[in-house]
Amino acid sequence: MHGRIQQVTVVGTGLLGGSLGLALRAHGFEGRIVGVGRRDATLEAARACGCIDEGTTDLATGVAEADLVVLAPPVGTILKLLPQLAQCLPAGAVVTDVGSTKESIVAAAEAALRRPGRFVGSHPMAGGELTGPRAGDANLFTGKPVILTPTDRTEGEALAQVTAMWEGLGMRLHRMSPRQHDVAVGRISHMPHAAAVLLVALAQEADLEVASTGFGGMTRVAAGDPNMWADIFLDNADALAGVLGEWRKLWAEFEKVLADRDREGVIKLLRDAQQTRREWEKNANELG
Amino acid sequence: MHGRIQQVTVVGTGLLGGSLGLALRAHGFEGRIVGVGRRDATLEAARACGCIDEGTTDLATGVAEADLVVLAPPVGTILKLLPQLAQCLPAGAVVTDVGSTKESIVAAAEAALRRPGRFVGSHPMAGGELTGPRAGDANLFTGKPVILTPTDRTEGEALAQVTAMWEGLGMRLHRMSPRQHDVAVGRISHMPHAAAVLLVALAQEADLEVASTGFGGMTRVAAGDPNMWADIFLDNADALAGVLGEWRKLWAEFEKVLADRDREGVIKLLRDAQQTRREWEKNANELG
Repeated sequence: MHGRIQQVTVVGTGLLGGSLGLALRAHGFEGRIVGVGRRDATLEAARACGCIDEGTTDLATGVAEADLVVLAPPVGTILKLLPQLAQCLPAGAVVTDVGSTKESIVAAAEAALRRPGRFVGSHPMAGGELTGPRAGDANLFTGKPVILTPTDRTEGEALAQVTAMWEGLGMRLHRMSPRQHDVAVGRISHMPHAAAVLLVALAQEADLEVASTGFGGMTRVAAGDPNMWADIFLDNADALAGVLGEWRKLWAEFEKVLADRDREGVIKLLRDAQQTRREWEKNANELG
Repeated sequence: MHGRIQQVTVVGTGLLGGSLGLALRAHGFEGRIVGVGRRDATLEAARACGCIDEGTTDLATGVAEADLVVLAPPVGTILKLLPQLAQCLPAGAVVTDVGSTKESIVAAAEAALRRPGRFVGSHPMAGGELTGPRAGDANLFTGKPVILTPTDRTEGEALAQVTAMWEGLGMRLHRMSPRQHDVAVGRISHMPHAAAVLLVALAQEADLEVASTGFGGMTRVAAGDPNMWADIFLDNADALAGVLGEWRKLWAEFEKVLADRDREGVIKLLRDAQQTRREWEKNANELG
């Protein structure tokens, strides 16, 4: 990471924020890592696990000497924090985030911050079922993709710093516009989550009694936090509207080949997916 | 298992058939286990792994002295085998299967066999990503549900024998009509598989480059055998037509709460699924 960064402030010390602190340290960052959180207990746990050097519940105190601020709470909280952050952010600090949506966050950040060019939207494609700093993992990000969404207002130096941080953790960099990002993660992350939720809703009580490993695997994520996912879905509702249209077409195609008892059509759908999925797995393994 | 069974013939010695042989032996069956397969190499592998005592590629030879015949190939093959089996099945033998659909298999068996009452449809809800007898697992069935689909033509003694076999392997017994079965597995098995396939189809090439663990988990099964799944989908197309209608309604509801930015509605969908999924997991862990 850029040599001049002496303090990174991580706002939100849950799984992602906590892992980020551990990862920075494990990958050689020698400066100070400050955590900002809502609850003393979480901050103390984050400190005890080595995720942060010190913690505070006061945003202004936490960012006062920061060179780089990483916003790592859920999407809804990031949006609420930005106006507060604008009031206390040091002029030279660069800001990034790890939120699951980008269009609204980037727009809110550029509207709120006095130097909009110092904000760079990020979305590291890493996570897990566990939560909290105790689940933190110094290798959570290694080998995974990270999407950066700079705009034409973004300062080159800010982009370089954020790029250096993620690359330093071993992430694979991708760049998209905020909207492209939201459509892409709509397809590969939000729709799979919605599918898991609706597959649970589809199952009747008697069905659940005979459901086994396959059902369990496909619906695991439906046990996740409703508030966090409601924020994501609602924040990305615009991009998802288009994706839901694509999804409806795919199901209509599936219904048609089934209704027509069109074996070649069914096989083609299955074979294309098999090939794509296998190639994806191969590439993911080679890169990860 | 019923004391008088001296020979079980397993037709199809892949993952399920091979595991069945191992499980019968591990759970104390002392009689002979004969495998019937298409290829000598697979039969030899099954014998070497201890899945079967002896193997043959000739169905008539394999079942000549069987007391119990278990049909364990894919659905399409079961349907093709039944008329052949009717020509060579000993009068007293009981027949069951492990096919993923039941209405067509039960109807075909009752139409083909001279003593329709000796057939009992079964569907053990167990399986895995691996294939072939070498992936066989003596505990594949333990603690898992098995659905039996006797009809009013089924003889009580045949039902008792098949029941005793699955219970002897530690499975949890459920009884449904063939149609109820097909609708239930449509919801908890076939729709999850179709969702995985169509989630892969939904992802564009650029999306796949940034897809990570979550996408991987939700689409893993889409790498499965297209021919096997085409058989299942087409064989269950009738029951799936109704289930697809239910599915469409759930997505329409999801689209509506998103379009209305109805946070309470989104939360309710997510919270209901979370609760159902958590209770299901709890029950599955207690029983399994």
